[in-house]
Amino acid sequence: MRITGIEAVPYAIPYTKPLKFASGEVHAAEHVLVRVHTDDGAVGVADAVPRPFTYGETQASVVAVIERIFTPQLVGEDVFARERIHGRLHRTVGNPAAKSALDMALWDLAGQSCGRSVTELLGGHTDRMRVSHMLGFDAPQRMADEALRVRDTYGIAVFKVKVGRRPVGLDLDVCRALRSALGDEAELYVDGNRGWTASEAAAALRELDELGMTLAEELCPADDVLGRRWLVAQSRIPFVADESATTPAEAARSLLDGAATAISVKTARTGFTHSQRVLFLCEGLGAEVVMGNQIDGQLGTVCTVAFGAAHAASSRRAGELSNFLDMSDDLLTDPPVITDGTLAVRDGPGLGVVIDDAKLARYRQDR
Amino acid sequence: MRITGIEAVPYAIPYTKPLKFASGEVHAAEHVLVRVHTDDGAVGVADAVPRPFTYGETQASVVAVIERIFTPQLVGEDVFARERIHGRLHRTVGNPAAKSALDMALWDLAGQSCGRSVTELLGGHTDRMRVSHMLGFDAPQRMADEALRVRDTYGIAVFKVKVGRRPVGLDLDVCRALRSALGDEAELYVDGNRGWTASEAAAALRELDELGMTLAEELCPADDVLGRRWLVAQSRIPFVADESATTPAEAARSLLDGAATAISVKTARTGFTHSQRVLFLCEGLGAEVVMGNQIDGQLGTVCTVAFGAAHAASSRRAGELSNFLDMSDDLLTDPPVITDGTLAVRDGPGLGVVIDDAKLARYRQDR
Repeated sequence: MRITGIEAVPYAIPYTKPLKFASGEVHAAEHVLVRVHTDDGAVGVADAVPRPFTYGETQASVVAVIERIFTPQLVGEDVFARERIHGRLHRTVGNPAAKSALDMALWDLAGQSCGRSVTELLGGHTDRMRVSHMLGFDAPQRMADEALRVRDTYGIAVFKVKVGRRPVGLDLDVCRALRSALGDEAELYVDGNRGWTASEAAAALRELDELGMTLAEELCPADDVLGRRWLVAQSRIPFVADESATTPAEAARSLLDGAATAISVKTARTGFTHSQRVLFLCEGLGAEVVMGNQIDGQLGTVCTVAFGAAHAASSRRAGELSNFLDMSDDLLTDPPVITDGTLAVRDGPGLGVVIDDAKLARYRQDR
Repeated sequence: MRITGIEAVPYAIPYTKPLKFASGEVHAAEHVLVRVHTDDGAVGVADAVPRPFTYGETQASVVAVIERIFTPQLVGEDVFARERIHGRLHRTVGNPAAKSALDMALWDLAGQSCGRSVTELLGGHTDRMRVSHMLGFDAPQRMADEALRVRDTYGIAVFKVKVGRRPVGLDLDVCRALRSALGDEAELYVDGNRGWTASEAAAALRELDELGMTLAEELCPADDVLGRRWLVAQSRIPFVADESATTPAEAARSLLDGAATAISVKTARTGFTHSQRVLFLCEGLGAEVVMGNQIDGQLGTVCTVAFGAAHAASSRRAGELSNFLDMSDDLLTDPPVITDGTLAVRDGPGLGVVIDDAKLARYRQDR
């Protein structure tokens, strides 16, 4: 089953509600659909999510690196020669979204070839994940209203609250409003996207502790080396490295240097192959993980569930799986549906997805 | 594809030449053939290699834990629910050979079901491994003669020399004789099986250094905590933890505590699933691995190659793959053949092996 060609199709779909957080805002999903074609007619798909403010990639850079560098390296290669293929991709520095989309498309093809889901190939631990919903910056009452709506509509009971604004009290007011609206049974945790200093974060953590937060993510910059270490040492809840730990080596350094006690795993930046490396590294070092969201659409969300459900350690906490709800439209013929606060692994071989050609034709930007 | 039953068949096959090393000797392969049966008639196989002097398991303990504890936990379970199955096996402490054989038999079944080799499912990096040959205790000239014979017969150019005897000069004489007989192009490394003290090992390392050894394994006990750390800190070649690092957590501790700078990965004790965890942990921490040998027969050797060839990091060094040559007979209808110093991944789905029923009937000990 050999690779005959690769498509990298840029497309844009507006969000109904822009997501705002300490390191940026996102108004439209400007992604790249990656399709890997093979000599037996099978097509593997995945979504590349460029995040210039996190990894420096753009739609144009993803398309260019796939078309000009990766495609010539991969055409003719066997779909099951995954590790050898990664050896080739590795010669090009960076470009995590482009490499990850290729990786996941290869796993989609492997699953199709085997007649098995990607989740089964990866480990087959369970068939669904609990969903955590991300709440972007807004006024306290509006965020509480959104949380209640999401809870009542989808049964979601876990919420990630974007914090990191100044003064710190802005976000503390939000967290208090959420706890008050949702009651004690809801799980709440915070993500600062490096917005605070270490001392601001330390002060916030003391108050957040009383509100029963369960995780604290990137409250201050990891590059504030000593301040971050000082903050993490005093945190009574796991401190998550996300954008500061995007490779196995960065995850190892974060954990060993005291810059984090848990790691956010995102299939959009480490695919399945390297997400497993990050996961197994964290397991071996005794660090928890949370399945994060790169503000994924439907396809990226399907990938996160496929990976997260495959292992005990990646499915223990709720995964961040609901950002796709805010898109005005999307590309799958059969959209994922959140029920009882969970998302199921899809039936069928590979990723189990079909791209809606009419929608792709409508949103693609290259024709 | 559900598990319907599991056989654990004890068998014994004499070695033509007993292997002698610092922590014991082995005169016969007293193993347990594990066969996992499924509802569609497929059978997955693997070999359990009990090593009482390393892990405390015996043939009887392997048979008992599989028949009485693991079989009831696994019957009815899907072959692709590997991570969930390991969650169940994990409830029982220890028993690594028994658990690993079950794990590898499940991967054999997964490969058969997918029509793909286990190597392809694991990563598909390459199709063969270079072979390292293990030289047990003997007089210097006899060990050199064996090395020359193995080199000339099989094209093997990498040798692991068992050391750890007293006085240290005994083994240094062996190493000198080997270097002299084999010349500079042969790769030589040493395994002390904890036979020396740290200071004996330090003295030996200085002399071994001049002989161009490439790895030093378990020269002194890991439980001599400070002595081992002192020794490893001064070693100019990677210091390998083998029997002191048999789980991901032990490997992490060994590397972080300075008790080793490399890890021996053995599918006989961590199967494929946990060997991948150890491998990815080592990769993330920047530690090299070597594929070790549990004094495996043909089937165990096939498993080591299947795993080792799947990833760049596990196939970079020669694997210890030739112990099966010393068995007087074995169980596969189509024995592995070492050519040009390499062993190929087997064709065909799963592990690609067929058990010779007549031979199993002859050597099995339960009828």
